[in-house]
Amino acid sequence: MSSTWGRQLRLSIWGESHSQSIGAVLDGLPAGEQIDMEELLFFMSRRSSQGGSLDTPRVEKDYPEIQSGIVNNITCGTPVCAVIHNGNTRSKDYSQLACKARPGHADYTGFMRYGGHNDIRGGGHFSGRLTAPLVFAGGLCRQLLARRGIAIAAHIASIHHVQDTPFPLLGPDKETASRLNRSFFPVLDEVAGQQMRDCIEAARREQNSVGGVVECALLGLPAGLGDPIFDNVESALSSLLFAIPGVKGVEFGAGFSISQMMGSQSNDPFYMKNGSVYTKTNNNGGILGGITSGMPVIFRVAFKPTPSIGLPQETVDFVRGENTELTVQGRHDPCIVRRAVPCVEAAVALSITDLLLCSQGGWK
Amino acid sequence: MSSTWGRQLRLSIWGESHSQSIGAVLDGLPAGEQIDMEELLFFMSRRSSQGGSLDTPRVEKDYPEIQSGIVNNITCGTPVCAVIHNGNTRSKDYSQLACKARPGHADYTGFMRYGGHNDIRGGGHFSGRLTAPLVFAGGLCRQLLARRGIAIAAHIASIHHVQDTPFPLLGPDKETASRLNRSFFPVLDEVAGQQMRDCIEAARREQNSVGGVVECALLGLPAGLGDPIFDNVESALSSLLFAIPGVKGVEFGAGFSISQMMGSQSNDPFYMKNGSVYTKTNNNGGILGGITSGMPVIFRVAFKPTPSIGLPQETVDFVRGENTELTVQGRHDPCIVRRAVPCVEAAVALSITDLLLCSQGGWK
Amino acid sequence: MSSTWGRQLRLSIWGESHSQSIGAVLDGLPAGEQIDMEELLFFMSRRSSQGGSLDTPRVEKDYPEIQSGIVNNITCGTPVCAVIHNGNTRSKDYSQLACKARPGHADYTGFMRYGGHNDIRGGGHFSGRLTAPLVFAGGLCRQLLARRGIAIAAHIASIHHVQDTPFPLLGPDKETASRLNRSFFPVLDEVAGQQMRDCIEAARREQNSVGGVVECALLGLPAGLGDPIFDNVESALSSLLFAIPGVKGVEFGAGFSISQMMGSQSNDPFYMKNGSVYTKTNNNGGILGGITSGMPVIFRVAFKPTPSIGLPQETVDFVRGENTELTVQGRHDPCIVRRAVPCVEAAVALSITDLLLCSQGGWK
Amino acid sequence: MSSTWGRQLRLSIWGESHSQSIGAVLDGLPAGEQIDMEELLFFMSRRSSQGGSLDTPRVEKDYPEIQSGIVNNITCGTPVCAVIHNGNTRSKDYSQLACKARPGHADYTGFMRYGGHNDIRGGGHFSGRLTAPLVFAGGLCRQLLARRGIAIAAHIASIHHVQDTPFPLLGPDKETASRLNRSFFPVLDEVAGQQMRDCIEAARREQNSVGGVVECALLGLPAGLGDPIFDNVESALSSLLFAIPGVKGVEFGAGFSISQMMGSQSNDPFYMKNGSVYTKTNNNGGILGGITSGMPVIFRVAFKPTPSIGLPQETVDFVRGENTELTVQGRHDPCIVRRAVPCVEAAVALSITDLLLCSQGGWK
Repeated sequence: MSSTWGRQLRLSIWGESHSQSIGAVLDGLPAGEQIDMEELLFFMSRRSSQGGSLDTPRVEKDYPEIQSGIVNNITCGTPVCAVIHNGNTRSKDYSQLACKARPGHADYTGFMRYGGHNDIRGGGHFSGRLTAPLVFAGGLCRQLLARRGIAIAAHIASIHHVQDTPFPLLGPDKETASRLNRSFFPVLDEVAGQQMRDCIEAARREQNSVGGVVECALLGLPAGLGDPIFDNVESALSSLLFAIPGVKGVEFGAGFSISQMMGSQSNDPFYMKNGSVYTKTNNNGGILGGITSGMPVIFRVAFKPTPSIGLPQETVDFVRGENTELTVQGRHDPCIVRRAVPCVEAAVALSITDLLLCSQGGWK
Repeated sequence: MSSTWGRQLRLSIWGESHSQSIGAVLDGLPAGEQIDMEELLFFMSRRSSQGGSLDTPRVEKDYPEIQSGIVNNITCGTPVCAVIHNGNTRSKDYSQLACKARPGHADYTGFMRYGGHNDIRGGGHFSGRLTAPLVFAGGLCRQLLARRGIAIAAHIASIHHVQDTPFPLLGPDKETASRLNRSFFPVLDEVAGQQMRDCIEAARREQNSVGGVVECALLGLPAGLGDPIFDNVESALSSLLFAIPGVKGVEFGAGFSISQMMGSQSNDPFYMKNGSVYTKTNNNGGILGGITSGMPVIFRVAFKPTPSIGLPQETVDFVRGENTELTVQGRHDPCIVRRAVPCVEAAVALSITDLLLCSQGGWK
Repeated sequence: MSSTWGRQLRLSIWGESHSQSIGAVLDGLPAGEQIDMEELLFFMSRRSSQGGSLDTPRVEKDYPEIQSGIVNNITCGTPVCAVIHNGNTRSKDYSQLACKARPGHADYTGFMRYGGHNDIRGGGHFSGRLTAPLVFAGGLCRQLLARRGIAIAAHIASIHHVQDTPFPLLGPDKETASRLNRSFFPVLDEVAGQQMRDCIEAARREQNSVGGVVECALLGLPAGLGDPIFDNVESALSSLLFAIPGVKGVEFGAGFSISQMMGSQSNDPFYMKNGSVYTKTNNNGGILGGITSGMPVIFRVAFKPTPSIGLPQETVDFVRGENTELTVQGRHDPCIVRRAVPCVEAAVALSITDLLLCSQGGWK
Repeated sequence: MSSTWGRQLRLSIWGESHSQSIGAVLDGLPAGEQIDMEELLFFMSRRSSQGGSLDTPRVEKDYPEIQSGIVNNITCGTPVCAVIHNGNTRSKDYSQLACKARPGHADYTGFMRYGGHNDIRGGGHFSGRLTAPLVFAGGLCRQLLARRGIAIAAHIASIHHVQDTPFPLLGPDKETASRLNRSFFPVLDEVAGQQMRDCIEAARREQNSVGGVVECALLGLPAGLGDPIFDNVESALSSLLFAIPGVKGVEFGAGFSISQMMGSQSNDPFYMKNGSVYTKTNNNGGILGGITSGMPVIFRVAFKPTPSIGLPQETVDFVRGENTELTVQGRHDPCIVRRAVPCVEAAVALSITDLLLCSQGGWK
């Protein structure tokens, strides 16, 4: 088992990088919800390669052919299925990989997991391409959440050593959130953004790659969402975030740095204003005891550098059982962080929609 | 729903800090496994308050009365239930809390979640005391894993600004692992350990608190465990780790710092030795594509400072709907990190046992 | 895995017939629900042996000691745990069973399932005694449902060849439902009831046993509950009904006899009255396409004769690997159907509460 | 949620009768299994309309276009997706249904469930056509089971009042099982078979419909499969059987008639032969305490008459809120039982494969 997720909302993802198609079945979406298809395609386009120097030259249209569950742009309440055809594949680029494990990739672990029967072309089921159906499904949820006043905004917090201005822990304002949502390279500080682009471009020229951090804010969540112990909000979000390829760390609020504070500093003081409860700081990232406090939920996600690099690397040959060297051919992104931003947003949209559907107050 | 976890192994935890008892039902443990009760009690004692200046003066024996599923120290294969009675409770210490939210605690979020019907005495179901049944259940799994050559070792990587020597990413040796397993304050560098104790003691004297980081290593895992996409090992581990109260961040391998490496550096080169496959470095923390590589799984968990502090704090009064001040009475730990170490080990033991039971190779 | 059930409402049952205790953890019950403990104990008493000639002489008080999740008779929203101590056990009665499989019992299948490590005293985890925690949990749900106008009524439809008057498919009236709810031997026709008692008494005298059928009606369910395909109401109910020991068949509405009707007869015509939709007949038992129609849900459950009989029986000896004979000692019910009635009601109460909590309209 | 099933094996089904396509994602199938596509298509053809006088004139090719998870007829271990295009649709036949509820169908309950947003053309997601992906998925599992010596055989036990010879409770022989597996109208007694055909033909001529019973045998299951209480084999099988449209009853072994036996008769005596354990009778249908005994698992499934009939029927008009009459147009089966046989076999194949993957002995 591997590719089925959710409690009240269920997502099933299929496909390999070079299979007939990839796609998603999303079951449990409420009936009667209007879907803006143009908005959905725009959201998915933020994940697609733009084909410039920052992304892989493999440009896919990523067009989700909706099979079921939506009629006249209204959800039926039944499973929504979308098929995304795999068009632009070059399977021969992967011929040498059948026996050589690409470092940082899942070739070896996939071989051990599936006894060598998995489809390795293009990374197979492990390919970052499998995030397209995730973004499709999350894109639907995002629209339902937006209609209920819940916004999701993310930016590239860092690329390699270049840092963007972080979100204030009390959350970005709505205009900033909107601006980031329309951007293909979302940053708060455009100067840092240009440095990031230069950094990625430099890595590409060296046939190398870089990683980075995505920071995300959830605005407008009600207080009281989630459960103590196992079904807490941090567990729900992190388990879906780690499902995005390349993620190696997740932290909420002040995150790892909260471990260096004193309790008198990390405790967020409560106050009331106009009958509502707020906190003056937000080191806990909008979550206390696993349950939302009504303050913005802020978190950061660490991405490793793209493992596909053009430089020669030491590795092993499975078939011959010997040490060898490998130079990865094919078309790759020098940095996946830009394209990971909508993946993070999609994962969060799915997770929050499921939490809302599971909450006993139910879907409003 | 909140307190039920697992796929093939299922854990259900009940109780409030001041209820009749707390406890656990662990369902799905294989039949015929020998349990060393003395070892189990020792493991649980590492989580208990030692009553000295580092821990809360509320000392509980935490004795798990086994109700079912184990006969003559052998698992039956049926659900194992343990009841841990709540003895040393002082409910009156919490009388003023009924209306005032303790900052950093779940009083307010719990109120919103349960409409004010949850049992707030001692933190209720949110209390760190609920980790006792978690440690009981994880302690059982730990013994099954040890018998299959899988060891779990953790140390206090930092308290406030004091850092212990980190684990080498290629993993600690077996002797170190064993030594840490017997320790009530596990560190690699005893000098740092003394500084940590001093730091905690200082926080206690100031009626304040400190946080820290726990680092954990899993040794002896087979390659090929876990699944791509949703049921990957990082998701499985992180979702259980975030269920431990106070956790605000989780990172694997090089973690957040991998985002500042070049791909040529973060990619761990493979090599063969005596017919087995290893990596020369372990920035990916023993997990590639969500599946174990056979290298040690290394991760770090950030804990916030204990939210219960003796200093006066700003907060709100629910009943009167007004801003107010609060000084938390009761008995508290100036730092929970020491006691969190076996919680981390227990969470990991549960998660890995479930993954092994779910893997199609099955339980050997 | 075995003893954990549910989606939004989760039930975990533990215990063996002769273990320290048996019990249940029920997680996901809404907060703020008033529980009538006297009513709950009365409901549980309907399942207990009355110790007369119809039931086993093993009389257990079945007192559920509530450990958590209920304070001052109000649900907290957190897991409700109840411990039921095993008092009146005579383990020596089972000494010969260690090697001889009782026909109709799970001794042999349990041995194969657990490799001989399960606790076989009194039937162990397979014992009908394990329905006490089920009835406890269902008894809580039953009260929540009653408050929302949903009633559950069941009667003994037959014992051996003696038939009670069946429920009309359009459902019993409320007075009849109430009367059945208070009865320890619920029948519609008291003459048939006396014949049933005579039949059971005769079986007891012959050291033999008899089975029967329980018929149950759910009144007041809203239309639109359940889902097509896998999570339909018939699947949800039947899977929990087959969890009651001794059940060998479940049928809804006209059940097996609908297979002998013509479509023009089995189709229930719709009509409107005062703005509400009804059907003139109810051969579909209140469920169409897996979803409730608002008509009473009617179903029947077939119970086999108690497998424990005092007559000598042919069987096998595990240890010696040979054919042998067995006379079951111990204290047994000549018929379990009477005590199974509240078990059926409890299973249904649990299942419907979970369905309501899963429905997107949520819990009112 | 509705259309996602399974524990270790997960099935997600999508589609409406008149949507772009219907299909299935089957996740968790072991890697390296050879699939005989011709055999799979033959199995699916048994479910298809043959277009004669017994079936609907809507003949669909039901060709499953495999999208992923199978390469060169070998399973990859990753999700298998198949798309089945909807070709031969006549949506206009359903124009009047938008406001009139067809008796015996899910039009009204679906309207209540989805607030009128579901796609009602051709029965939408409730259509019997949705069993095509179920049969596809079950057909894959069936081949894996066959390779492990587990056979599934079913026959039409009755149509209306015409009875076929029942299976002996000790199970049919292998030749009979094979013969039934190749038949498009599987019966044991061909004379009864001809009477059944005549009965269906007569119903068709009268614009009416008939139901029937399918009896199924599972041969070659190991002893010790399943779990006590909730995850017992009867619950697992019945919950999937009730997911087939039109099923109103399920019984195992002697089923409802066991309730009229004495214990001395219903208890199946054990005996040993050549070191193996058998029972002399099989009233318990190969399942004791919810766990397989190694004897054939025998069960019967009751199907109601096809609700679509050509006769005028009383019903209600949703839009106008008034009583009215309806004559169902469109193309329908006068009896679905023949086509339901492979559905029953498929449901059972899925359920048993999941149980085997969940069993701790694991998949061999």
